[in-house]
Amino acid sequence: MEEKKSRVLILGAGRSSAHLIQYLLNHATELGIHLRVGDADVKMAEEKVGASTDASVFECDAENENLLESEMAHAEIVVSMLPAFMHPKIAKLCLKLHKHLITPSYLSSEMMSMDQEARAKNLIFLNEMGVDPGIDHMSAMKIIHALKQKGADIHAFYSLTGGLIAPESDNNPWNYKITWNPRNVVLAGAGGTAHYRENGKDKLIPYQRLFERTMSVEIPNYGEFEGYANRDSMAYEELYDLPGIPTLYRGTLRKKGFSQAWNVLVQWGLTDDTRVMNWDQMSMQAFTQTFLPDDSLAYIKREVSNEVLYKLQWLGLWDVVPVPIKRGTAAQVIQALIEERWSLAPLDRDMLVMCHLFDYALDGKHFRMQSSMVLEGENNRYTAMSATVGLPMAIAVKHILNDSWKQRGVILPIHQEIYEPILEELIKFNIQFTEQIKEC
Amino acid sequence: MEEKKSRVLILGAGRSSAHLIQYLLNHATELGIHLRVGDADVKMAEEKVGASTDASVFECDAENENLLESEMAHAEIVVSMLPAFMHPKIAKLCLKLHKHLITPSYLSSEMMSMDQEARAKNLIFLNEMGVDPGIDHMSAMKIIHALKQKGADIHAFYSLTGGLIAPESDNNPWNYKITWNPRNVVLAGAGGTAHYRENGKDKLIPYQRLFERTMSVEIPNYGEFEGYANRDSMAYEELYDLPGIPTLYRGTLRKKGFSQAWNVLVQWGLTDDTRVMNWDQMSMQAFTQTFLPDDSLAYIKREVSNEVLYKLQWLGLWDVVPVPIKRGTAAQVIQALIEERWSLAPLDRDMLVMCHLFDYALDGKHFRMQSSMVLEGENNRYTAMSATVGLPMAIAVKHILNDSWKQRGVILPIHQEIYEPILEELIKFNIQFTEQIKEC
Repeated sequence: MEEKKSRVLILGAGRSSAHLIQYLLNHATELGIHLRVGDADVKMAEEKVGASTDASVFECDAENENLLESEMAHAEIVVSMLPAFMHPKIAKLCLKLHKHLITPSYLSSEMMSMDQEARAKNLIFLNEMGVDPGIDHMSAMKIIHALKQKGADIHAFYSLTGGLIAPESDNNPWNYKITWNPRNVVLAGAGGTAHYRENGKDKLIPYQRLFERTMSVEIPNYGEFEGYANRDSMAYEELYDLPGIPTLYRGTLRKKGFSQAWNVLVQWGLTDDTRVMNWDQMSMQAFTQTFLPDDSLAYIKREVSNEVLYKLQWLGLWDVVPVPIKRGTAAQVIQALIEERWSLAPLDRDMLVMCHLFDYALDGKHFRMQSSMVLEGENNRYTAMSATVGLPMAIAVKHILNDSWKQRGVILPIHQEIYEPILEELIKFNIQFTEQIKEC
Repeated sequence: MEEKKSRVLILGAGRSSAHLIQYLLNHATELGIHLRVGDADVKMAEEKVGASTDASVFECDAENENLLESEMAHAEIVVSMLPAFMHPKIAKLCLKLHKHLITPSYLSSEMMSMDQEARAKNLIFLNEMGVDPGIDHMSAMKIIHALKQKGADIHAFYSLTGGLIAPESDNNPWNYKITWNPRNVVLAGAGGTAHYRENGKDKLIPYQRLFERTMSVEIPNYGEFEGYANRDSMAYEELYDLPGIPTLYRGTLRKKGFSQAWNVLVQWGLTDDTRVMNWDQMSMQAFTQTFLPDDSLAYIKREVSNEVLYKLQWLGLWDVVPVPIKRGTAAQVIQALIEERWSLAPLDRDMLVMCHLFDYALDGKHFRMQSSMVLEGENNRYTAMSATVGLPMAIAVKHILNDSWKQRGVILPIHQEIYEPILEELIKFNIQFTEQIKEC
């Protein structure tokens, strides 16, 4: 007689699910699980599952609540890689059916409102369990807890993450390729003014200054990077239990030089997503000229350095070829351009870089600690992005199935019982932080 | 026995209604009308109506459809000065009750959808009947029709309007005071990228460049002004029947120098309306420093000229006084500042400036025509803004009551039968255009 297996339900088998599924398949026997993988595109699910007998796939129409409910009814735990806006619906079904839930998405207030009921039902709804948010929380909390334990007074915390490209695959002048949602790459920062704190003072950076006011970071063996501020760093004051910390900054990492060139697109209006235009019959050159008061090379050279001009030209802004979409916003045109120019080739290896800087006082001395992690991907399928998003979630599945955590309700991985075993296991996958401490 | 009077219903007795009501009271006997004036603040209505026996007032709760309906039932014509978003609701009641309607607001698609029914019921729904939109349409169409009649080929049309301050009341370094909605003054241009056409090419200007890429205009006897582009000039290609015109630009006028200084607020992020902050316990100086990476005078002087710095200081950006609101966006803080600093004093006279430029070819020669109008207000109640918004509407009331127009349905004042008598009568109120034609 066959042993009863626990079902793990994975909703969404896209780019980010590769390592998640692979880890769970590799541990299927040990965990006694059967993996059930659904995607709107069932071929994606089949591709990820391969010939494994520990898994089955289904076509997942996320609008079909009956289907979701019947799939979830058989599962012990649900891992949702669906778009973030769908998570509250999934979570409600999890409450109804008494299932644990893991997502890599930012905790929404709608999700938070389910905390009490989830606790009452002894369920774990673990959110922000990917890389950023996810590994950032875990690695930061580990250091914060350790420093506090030692009695250190933390007066500055900078945390920066970037989905980038490994040096050997880095063959374009922007030193960048797309490893996540390209629309979000184009609209980065456009959603609103960034907010952080520096030396006890609140600071606001509007979109039109965001890519000018970058900070510089040196990553051992990987050279110089730059960070631009994320939307609201101050939300982390409470989350990380750092009340009144004088400096708190979260940012996005790019290779040095990226932001100066991207800023030109922002300044010229090429990332505008408000005005839909007809670009039919128009060349990329004419598209670009639409944003310039004077399209002479002399004018442009007054505006930008040769180095930046080279990046812009490489992107195709002056090509005498048709605009890649017939109608849409400038942001949509730029998205179409970068989806082509910044795409990962099959053998390209991406690179995830995360870096925390802590300034603290301990025993009357002042220190700066830099804790950084660099993971290079294997290829354009087993990416560093997919590994850093999927592995923490997969390991969390194991711990929840083993009932090794006390936390219940709607939670984030900021608790020691959660981050400690996960960070430890991630080391086996080369997801490892290196610390440097300097007295200053 | 008393002669039966036609009722004219005015909804809204705010700033812009002063001349509208005054004109109709002055012509009440001649037109045989009784004026019914409603406002949420009934005192405003009483103040505007004064001791006249040709008018009565009521407290107008625009949410109370029963009240609106019973007031409208007695009227022959409705003039709505309510916020633009309320006009479709008013228009629907006008359809139901068979009443004509006049508004100063931009024609919405919802309003436009009532065209057929209004025509079928022999009603006039006259929109954009103020100054901008309103007098701009009328004065432009008069010239366009005349030039076309002569066989001229119009290849450029620029149209600029500004609500400004008369020279004798112009006593601040910005050469500006507020004569309309202050929130709209702060957020001018922030709604999206501006679109116009120049020499046959579409041009887009994002918000972050809007106040840098101004055009210069000289108004006879009033000196140099500058214009920044309005949101979508290209909508006027069809409206003014100028298909394929190589240059089409609509803009907002300010006195020379305004835009350069305002641009600094935009660049620094002080007009941001996305992030709500606590400003409690903070000085204006600290508020301003929130937006600067470096608050040293040396830094600021690298960013701005002394002339601009003077304007910014005059606004109070470095004052060691509390931020005028405890909580809100930066745009709301700036609004509170300018509401105080740029307010019209009781005896201040505002000034409405409108300027059209036409480049055209006629009989093998090339010409530039400038047609401009300047109206100075009387005081802070009988403003030029109120005159130029209210008088066209008031005169339209007269013509509709006299049944002198053939047009029916949802219309704008772009038709000769409408603009001709109105422009002619406006001359009596010193609202008069002066033309200069130069061969070039």
